Amino acid sequence: MLKGKVLVAQGGGPTAVINESLVGVVNEARKDPGVDRVYGARYGVSGIINEEFIDLTQETTDNLERVAKTPCSALGSTRDKPDRPYIQEILKVLKAHDIQTFIYIGGNDSSATLSLIGHEAQAQNISLRCVHIPKTIDNDLVINDHTPGYPSAARFVANAFAGVNLDNQALPGAYVGVVMGRHAGFLTAASTLARQEADDGPHLIYIPERKFDMSDFLTKFKQTYDRLGRCVAAVSEGIRDSDGHLLATQGRAVETDDHGNVQLSGTGGLADQLTAAIKRELKIERVRGDTFGYLQRSFVGCVSDIDQREAREVGEKAVQCARWEKQDGSITIRRTGNYSVAYDISPLDAVAGKTRYMPDEFISVSGTDVTEKFYLYLRPLLGSQMPDFAKLRRNEVAKVL
Amino acid sequence: MLKGKVLVAQGGGPTAVINESLVGVVNEARKDPGVDRVYGARYGVSGIINEEFIDLTQETTDNLERVAKTPCSALGSTRDKPDRPYIQEILKVLKAHDIQTFIYIGGNDSSATLSLIGHEAQAQNISLRCVHIPKTIDNDLVINDHTPGYPSAARFVANAFAGVNLDNQALPGAYVGVVMGRHAGFLTAASTLARQEADDGPHLIYIPERKFDMSDFLTKFKQTYDRLGRCVAAVSEGIRDSDGHLLATQGRAVETDDHGNVQLSGTGGLADQLTAAIKRELKIERVRGDTFGYLQRSFVGCVSDIDQREAREVGEKAVQCARWEKQDGSITIRRTGNYSVAYDISPLDAVAGKTRYMPDEFISVSGTDVTEKFYLYLRPLLGSQMPDFAKLRRNEVAKVL
Repeated sequence: MLKGKVLVAQGGGPTAVINESLVGVVNEARKDPGVDRVYGARYGVSGIINEEFIDLTQETTDNLERVAKTPCSALGSTRDKPDRPYIQEILKVLKAHDIQTFIYIGGNDSSATLSLIGHEAQAQNISLRCVHIPKTIDNDLVINDHTPGYPSAARFVANAFAGVNLDNQALPGAYVGVVMGRHAGFLTAASTLARQEADDGPHLIYIPERKFDMSDFLTKFKQTYDRLGRCVAAVSEGIRDSDGHLLATQGRAVETDDHGNVQLSGTGGLADQLTAAIKRELKIERVRGDTFGYLQRSFVGCVSDIDQREAREVGEKAVQCARWEKQDGSITIRRTGNYSVAYDISPLDAVAGKTRYMPDEFISVSGTDVTEKFYLYLRPLLGSQMPDFAKLRRNEVAKVL
Repeated sequence: MLKGKVLVAQGGGPTAVINESLVGVVNEARKDPGVDRVYGARYGVSGIINEEFIDLTQETTDNLERVAKTPCSALGSTRDKPDRPYIQEILKVLKAHDIQTFIYIGGNDSSATLSLIGHEAQAQNISLRCVHIPKTIDNDLVINDHTPGYPSAARFVANAFAGVNLDNQALPGAYVGVVMGRHAGFLTAASTLARQEADDGPHLIYIPERKFDMSDFLTKFKQTYDRLGRCVAAVSEGIRDSDGHLLATQGRAVETDDHGNVQLSGTGGLADQLTAAIKRELKIERVRGDTFGYLQRSFVGCVSDIDQREAREVGEKAVQCARWEKQDGSITIRRTGNYSVAYDISPLDAVAGKTRYMPDEFISVSGTDVTEKFYLYLRPLLGSQMPDFAKLRRNEVAKVL
């Protein structure tokens, strides 16, 4: 049995299934007769120091189930990076409310925050169980086979590229789509799952794991355009040139959050930069660029059922970890088959603040495509009922003139 | 009975349901024992002068049904605006292939092209039946209650704004989403169907039917931001300042198609311009802009079932018009109830090349919102099974510190 109150909070960027994890926590915690109350902190850790709690014990099961199916952090989120006084303030508030279990749903930064809180609680001899639940569309948490939120965002990106490829076939030209992912190329690489036939786009992908060279990009782009009369490229917002500089921030004021993360989304700068280069250097007339922006992590109505299920399960597991295993940790996902997973409890510090990149075995030798291994990795995550599409067969009519 | 061959083609920007109309034509035309063959022209009228036809009589019914559910012109499209020699070349090719019925699926520009072809055929005493099938996500064809393609794009825009509003609630700040629609605000206005509660976004909408004034925009944006701590605006790509200048083309080279349409999409320029002004003038820190771009007309997996049904029906009606009514015309949609429609045959010249705007009764007095009348107009078009979403109830915990 747990004791005192259980607190749950959500940190970092929202995902399509982050509320599944929230509801997994609430449902499981409410079963425990030892639990006094289940609270939710509004806006992540900032809601703790501001004492902004809502009592989730009073929420109806039916509404919780509807919230679970709703994208974006229902409790609100934060980008705050607590320093020592901030952490001490957190512990003061947790103690005042008799919160003895704190479950934080988030990515690298949130897990790092939780780790700091856990260490400080131990140092101060405060009884506080800390469990981290993974979530990030970037899929960049170490140890995890993949992270909840990524499969749904990947499904969005694959469906978006299936569409823009068909659009580009109907009105041929050059197209660049910029995808989120920060330091990791997983989400950009998901665009390749949109392809059906050999000449389908994206024809080129550019990920942060490989240096971006503008003249090489233009050369490859031209080769495809000359061959097919069109070219679709998927580009990560996080690509860097050979000096390690982010292309997305060139020529504009840089905005960073408390964790030092540079703002990459919310502007069309990178797509516009690349389409301008294509127009200028390759003299292609019809050049279009889209930046997928916030749609890819929040769109209502595009979600992977596998992702929903797993996000719910990691929420439940977090409470089980605290209740039955009586240990701090991060719930991690291990793939055990094609397709099946198991959940482990990993040490918080093994996950906290670390970044996972796309492994070489997922990236083609050219650096601008994926391997079959990546396809096999991602396909089951996209879930069931992926929208289908088809083309007319080319029963060509002989010319008479 | 029809005679000779039936030709079908698709012009202008693709939509999510444009292939429903194509399949409606093919299925109905293949029933007619008088029809020799059903051809499809690749890339609209340009496929006619290049004699690029595919024989749709050889396509399987099963594949046609799959194509019908696939977004974007399966035959390919064009932005060509034929001049007189081009029209004469078209007639020469049609005659050479014994094509006696030409059905063109498209918007204002395609209907204008078809009208020119019809007139020239009459002048040359060539037997050619010309029928236009409406399609455009802009919803800007006169006579029609609405046009196929608009409901699905509107559904995408509504779902996208439902998501970005939830995202913006989770991480509060300023958000601007730029939506397609050219001269008409219908698609931007669809964003308002995303709202559930009074403080949901979009809080402001900007449509081409009202002059855009930057200082008024900033004043209203600030009012909302000061009140809610956040603000979400939906802005049409086609907004113009008091001098009639498009904001989207300020500070960049202008690209136009043969019809004189300025390229508005495919760049993040307008969103970046507005978010820069918000940052600079209102000193708001977290400011994000997205340009929905090509996703809103091509996304695989976001379609209105009402739109699918109607797009199919106008295709079927076009063949019926040629076969039973034996007249040229444009199939138009008339609303007969809530919700039911009837299809009419309108004179081609009554539709061709004309633009419909959002009527005043759909626009709020403020000019930055819609009326209930618009809500009642659009809601049935979005179709069934609109994704639901819910929020946690605010059972606030009393502070103890």
